[in-house]
Amino acid sequence: MNSYPGSLQGLVEHLMKLPGVGRKTASRLAFHIVRMPGEQAEDLAAAIIEVKSRLALCSFCQNLTEYELCPICSDTSRDSHKLCVVEYPADVAAIENSGAFKGRYFVLHGILAPMQGLGPDDLRLEKLRQIVVNEKISEVVLATNPTVEGNTTALFLSRFLRPLGAHISRPACGLPVGADLEYMDSVTIRKSLDGRGPL
Amino acid sequence: MNSYPGSLQGLVEHLMKLPGVGRKTASRLAFHIVRMPGEQAEDLAAAIIEVKSRLALCSFCQNLTEYELCPICSDTSRDSHKLCVVEYPADVAAIENSGAFKGRYFVLHGILAPMQGLGPDDLRLEKLRQIVVNEKISEVVLATNPTVEGNTTALFLSRFLRPLGAHISRPACGLPVGADLEYMDSVTIRKSLDGRGPL
Repeated sequence: MNSYPGSLQGLVEHLMKLPGVGRKTASRLAFHIVRMPGEQAEDLAAAIIEVKSRLALCSFCQNLTEYELCPICSDTSRDSHKLCVVEYPADVAAIENSGAFKGRYFVLHGILAPMQGLGPDDLRLEKLRQIVVNEKISEVVLATNPTVEGNTTALFLSRFLRPLGAHISRPACGLPVGADLEYMDSVTIRKSLDGRGPL
Repeated sequence: MNSYPGSLQGLVEHLMKLPGVGRKTASRLAFHIVRMPGEQAEDLAAAIIEVKSRLALCSFCQNLTEYELCPICSDTSRDSHKLCVVEYPADVAAIENSGAFKGRYFVLHGILAPMQGLGPDDLRLEKLRQIVVNEKISEVVLATNPTVEGNTTALFLSRFLRPLGAHISRPACGLPVGADLEYMDSVTIRKSLDGRGPL
């Protein structure tokens, strides 16, 4: 793509640093930005700068927030004795949208992934331990993803937190609602049968 | 996604204006931008501003360029009597990468699409006519896409340009190199058979 003007090539290369964006997608996005009204492109650039300057981590749950304490942690109507541990801020949003959890969260900002050199020191374990002790947490829901790394991390955390006396749980694995058994992987089907309940 | 902080939600909504970016992709990109080093995010924002401020249209071919005349149009070694008409700047880059055309280009920045309200007035027809006449163009290659709209536009342009005396051509339709006949659509197969040549 040597025939792109320099500034266009520069934008393509910056866009390629985004996840899931290869050269073709980056070119498509860049050409779209070029065709955008100038004001709209400026707004996009400003939104990128703003999100970096305004967002910080909640001093309690470590989720992204524009305040010292995020709206969830400062909501006194929530059950302060239940704690849901997730990998990333996007997971908090997903669980909040489900409306099924009314306690507070703790965001690890990572996961145990020895292959990528991520060990226990990369998670905020001491902060988590302090919260479980100081806030008299009665239940910790380990809601890391049901992947190899997520399961390993949940197992590790359950051993780490067990001595503190809180009840430790993990979301159920099974068939997603609306799934088609024909296209479901056999590990999920096995999990859903192992965990079957009365009707 | 009401649980996102305002600046994050703002970035998500700006990203959703990009083509092929829905709410999920926009969230994923936004969270990635939040995790980027600050400098890298600033570079991305600056690249967006720069591409808007530096790029303009070549006064001859209407392609995007940072100069009055783009590098292709100012290259005197190219055949100035051949003109390749394309829909968008990305098409110029694609043809240049093929190395198969050594003339100059004309970028329509659009296509006849009556369903979207795009008619002849939205193309730069008068500019195109002037170039064909003034530059004594001997061949016009109508390289709009082989789609319904692209074919219609090519047909329209051939009628528009025919009285000017230039030879008018269109790239061949047929099987793409490496294609598997089994998975090819029947219209393409028919085109490739209709256009078959001696071996």
